[in-house]
Amino acid sequence: MNHAKRVNQHLDKVLSNQGSLTEAMRYSVLSGGKRFRATLTYTVAQTFDANLDLADGCACAVELIHAYSLIHDDLPAMDDDDIRHNQPACHKQFGEAQAILAGDGLQALAFEVLASDTQLSAQTRINTLQALTHASFEMAQGQSIDLGVASKIIDVDTLRDVHQKKTGALLGCAVKLGALVSESCNEQDILALERFAKNIGLAYQIQDDVLDVLTPEEILGKKQNSDADKNKPTYPALLGLERSKSEFERLYQQAFNDLDVLSVDTTQLRGLTLRLQGRKF
Amino acid sequence: MNHAKRVNQHLDKVLSNQGSLTEAMRYSVLSGGKRFRATLTYTVAQTFDANLDLADGCACAVELIHAYSLIHDDLPAMDDDDIRHNQPACHKQFGEAQAILAGDGLQALAFEVLASDTQLSAQTRINTLQALTHASFEMAQGQSIDLGVASKIIDVDTLRDVHQKKTGALLGCAVKLGALVSESCNEQDILALERFAKNIGLAYQIQDDVLDVLTPEEILGKKQNSDADKNKPTYPALLGLERSKSEFERLYQQAFNDLDVLSVDTTQLRGLTLRLQGRKF
Repeated sequence: MNHAKRVNQHLDKVLSNQGSLTEAMRYSVLSGGKRFRATLTYTVAQTFDANLDLADGCACAVELIHAYSLIHDDLPAMDDDDIRHNQPACHKQFGEAQAILAGDGLQALAFEVLASDTQLSAQTRINTLQALTHASFEMAQGQSIDLGVASKIIDVDTLRDVHQKKTGALLGCAVKLGALVSESCNEQDILALERFAKNIGLAYQIQDDVLDVLTPEEILGKKQNSDADKNKPTYPALLGLERSKSEFERLYQQAFNDLDVLSVDTTQLRGLTLRLQGRKF
Repeated sequence: MNHAKRVNQHLDKVLSNQGSLTEAMRYSVLSGGKRFRATLTYTVAQTFDANLDLADGCACAVELIHAYSLIHDDLPAMDDDDIRHNQPACHKQFGEAQAILAGDGLQALAFEVLASDTQLSAQTRINTLQALTHASFEMAQGQSIDLGVASKIIDVDTLRDVHQKKTGALLGCAVKLGALVSESCNEQDILALERFAKNIGLAYQIQDDVLDVLTPEEILGKKQNSDADKNKPTYPALLGLERSKSEFERLYQQAFNDLDVLSVDTTQLRGLTLRLQGRKF
């Protein structure tokens, strides 16, 4: 079974009995999404020969955090986006109040899934919780800086910091969770994976900026050119389209180099990185 | 040192290095509040002779969750309250976007504080995280039901369920966290404490409904009669003021009875319950 399908089945089970919030949470979580974060977690676990059952909770948790962040990002007070995954955004479908609460509930649920994952030892659960709570906090921080600097002139270093927090933190965490549930992953592997995660995290977000300019709405699943419309600082706005493309290609190349250091066969991680690098939306 | 002062000192330390969100988070968390939840945690721990250092992380975490929920509850899309703790609500001071993010960040931070509390064993941390993530989820659920039933006629059972989730869940969790860090707290004690927590949780919220009707704004620290203005279902609206008063007094009496079962000296918990029962705001 492919990883996206696997995490979808688990998400479907996790989101079944949450009373009045169930409908809005299911609407946003199960409506699509590429599941790259869950796939990263599973692929790292597989690379280190871990039983994938041990990664199911982590894969769900990162996707729940990702889904919560999208619901809140789309709110009128934030990025004010009406379309997500080719359907009305959560607040357009259920109203702002229920959308805020669905996001709040998903964040709590993500951590509850990890804390209650009885397949993992207490210590491993604590390690995964430390990583995911920190990443989730960084995402809120990144969005806070991003909204604070809209319409202002900033330099590439500041923009890199925003991107690292908004997108890199959770992608990096997805990689780390895969490593944490893998017994055979040693300290040196973890350091190399952290560099790998940092590089693909930043590459991914610069690529997002580029795709936002280049990709029509029907493929992107959300409004084209929405960053420029909101005066958001982006790599294309700061460096131009061509230099932004070279920059994310360079980072993906560095990510491939990081994989060379790993003590295990990295064919699958290379395949996944190639897929990320070649994505069109 | 009293418990409120103790938790304030720890909250001040926890909230010091969170970048762009620090100011809004400190503004909302450190601006006041009765710290009843932290006091419950400390008092239970003290009742079972636990070292209070072990309860500091838990006490901070429940207050961070409480503060996050108030920031989001006050938002225009939710309860639309402009005043909190006698100062402009977070969204009035920092704008809606930063208020949403400050709340989001506080929720993540609360769980990070617990996951990183190295004074507690991994298993105890997992136990506290399971309790707090679940309570936090229930709060979002309770607020979701509450907003869904505004302006509708509901029965007392439904209202009790809303109150239990919105307020009872976190108060109950505050009691439970105090028990979880106390080694000498046995199974029977925990069951009695759960009943105690449930009774004071519901009593507290019915009392809140009553105080909202009776207490002037300058003492309440927020707008008087705000529930009725919003067509929110309340105990006074359903049962009348006198029957609502009898109901919360009856529940506090039950809470005192629950304490009789405990295997330890309950003087402090009785004192705290008396303080809750006698509060004017």
